[in-house]
Amino acid sequence: MANDYRTRTAGAPWGWDEAHKRLHVAIVGATGAVGLELAELLFAAGHPLSRLDCLARKYGKLELGNKQKLDVRPLESTQDAESFPGVDLAFLCTPTELSRVLGPALAEHGVRVIDLSSAHRMRPDVPLVVPEINGAELARGGRLFANPNCTTAIAAMPLAVVEREFGLAEVIVVSYQAASGAGLPGLQALAFEQKRDAGVAALGAEPKSPFAATLSNNVIPAIAEVDEHGVSGEEQKIVEELRKILGRPDLVVEATTARVPVERCHSVAVHVATKRDVDLRRLKDALARAPGIALDPDPHGPRPRECAGTDPVHVGRVRAGTRGPRSLCFFAVGDQIRKGAALNAFQVAAKLPVDR
Amino acid sequence: MANDYRTRTAGAPWGWDEAHKRLHVAIVGATGAVGLELAELLFAAGHPLSRLDCLARKYGKLELGNKQKLDVRPLESTQDAESFPGVDLAFLCTPTELSRVLGPALAEHGVRVIDLSSAHRMRPDVPLVVPEINGAELARGGRLFANPNCTTAIAAMPLAVVEREFGLAEVIVVSYQAASGAGLPGLQALAFEQKRDAGVAALGAEPKSPFAATLSNNVIPAIAEVDEHGVSGEEQKIVEELRKILGRPDLVVEATTARVPVERCHSVAVHVATKRDVDLRRLKDALARAPGIALDPDPHGPRPRECAGTDPVHVGRVRAGTRGPRSLCFFAVGDQIRKGAALNAFQVAAKLPVDR
Repeated sequence: MANDYRTRTAGAPWGWDEAHKRLHVAIVGATGAVGLELAELLFAAGHPLSRLDCLARKYGKLELGNKQKLDVRPLESTQDAESFPGVDLAFLCTPTELSRVLGPALAEHGVRVIDLSSAHRMRPDVPLVVPEINGAELARGGRLFANPNCTTAIAAMPLAVVEREFGLAEVIVVSYQAASGAGLPGLQALAFEQKRDAGVAALGAEPKSPFAATLSNNVIPAIAEVDEHGVSGEEQKIVEELRKILGRPDLVVEATTARVPVERCHSVAVHVATKRDVDLRRLKDALARAPGIALDPDPHGPRPRECAGTDPVHVGRVRAGTRGPRSLCFFAVGDQIRKGAALNAFQVAAKLPVDR
Repeated sequence: MANDYRTRTAGAPWGWDEAHKRLHVAIVGATGAVGLELAELLFAAGHPLSRLDCLARKYGKLELGNKQKLDVRPLESTQDAESFPGVDLAFLCTPTELSRVLGPALAEHGVRVIDLSSAHRMRPDVPLVVPEINGAELARGGRLFANPNCTTAIAAMPLAVVEREFGLAEVIVVSYQAASGAGLPGLQALAFEQKRDAGVAALGAEPKSPFAATLSNNVIPAIAEVDEHGVSGEEQKIVEELRKILGRPDLVVEATTARVPVERCHSVAVHVATKRDVDLRRLKDALARAPGIALDPDPHGPRPRECAGTDPVHVGRVRAGTRGPRSLCFFAVGDQIRKGAALNAFQVAAKLPVDR
């Protein structure tokens, strides 16, 4: 599927301006699915490669879609901010435990940090930002910023429109999450299983799967650990992060998260109760006008396979609920590696005030 | 995966007794996925093959799992009940349009009819039956009985337990439906697409797909036609049929139905508001005791791949909702060809009073 990033964001308000191009940028965890996508975004935005450091656990090369190769430095002393000499801005595509120490260390050392893990998202002093929704948070100062959970970012985009138009009362989010949510190991495990199911011979060694069960031809109805109350880590993130991003600590959010055998793009079925009566025409108009949202007119869309590699959150099946005039339903799909991760982090960086 | 029908229903109350074995049974539409499963069920129940007529559009042979072959008669004059001489009981695994005329014609001719299509489900004079829930309806008399929509039957099983324990106020059902819901053409289309995606060479001709888009590596967020209000036919069925089966014409039901790349077994994420406070331990105990339900202790289950070919509706992820003490969530999986179709119809037949 075509990755039409270049054309879609050409005139976008989060363009990577000259001041940003002068920043020395580091991608930590550059060889993962999200790190690689960030490198692609920076390259496409015209960021000079001489001012881009790629770091990962192992030394090596990163190859972009256009065959351009980037050096990858090994991440030696991960807790030592001194090992990032001259870096102005760091994207942390790192495991939560690593982000927990590295994020504050770098920030204290003067580096602007955009952390894509869940380490700092719920800290009151750390903005958790989807630029189209609460980009104003970026002007609050501080140097450490958090990028939301992938499913949360995708669900938040249309929910922010509903909140503005009719006020949210209760939100139920049920997800269909792609293998890419578990990074390259997830993609590799699914591809292997699908080939085996299809009867492909000469498969080679089975990669270690990050999933709780075979994903091919299956649905795994919980993502991450399930706590003693039966709630999954992913569901807890959706509840807490949606409240923070939407600025509605009182919002009632209920979620079920499941993994489905899809490569890229998370999907969510959303059932909403609103504070005021819903006017569907007005809602569709507002969604169509909202930056970063594409309204899908296909009655059987949007679909993850077709949305892969695109920027917007695709919204369709917008309809009245059966719970009275203050209820509505919709379906939303977003590329979890792009708007669900790398693209959102890039947009956060592009919106950061830069004065040098 | 093992099809353990024989052991599971050996002592079940819907056993196929001697009176039923004396019935002359017809399966109309015997060569489809559901018709074939019904033949398997009757064979496993010890029904004499000399008193089993298999009919379909084309003459041919039906091969059971154990290689046993059954003759298939062509269905010539479909509206003519005279073409079913001596038949006492007919299962109609036929398209809705055909069931609409054939069902009443056969019933009028003295044949007991169990129709698996949606043709007669919402007729007030036709019982719509899930035996564990409203089997008493079968004693109401009449000769025409309707088998519910597959997703509805699966969701109804645990919902009936919640209704009995705490009273249902509002039900939200979000589905993950397998390819088998569209019968053999659905299974064949998915298998072909999956092989193509896996890079298998020599695929042969692409079968005609019953789906609105490629299903492999995808989610199709609407099943059947979508009406002018944006509601899919499948969603409408879930709303109407749940109300009828549960005997709650006032029940608020809201649904999103989506197709996922899974062979057999539909899954549903269910979010419920109840009339009385939920006691989770009591609910789990009641689910564990309920006939036809298997409570899954796996925090990442139940999963369709593992449930394929089994009889029960598997229920897991039972947890409190976030909408106060009168809310709860669970996940349920059932084999759509068995409990979602053939098995339920067989259970209806087995519970029909027979007096000859």
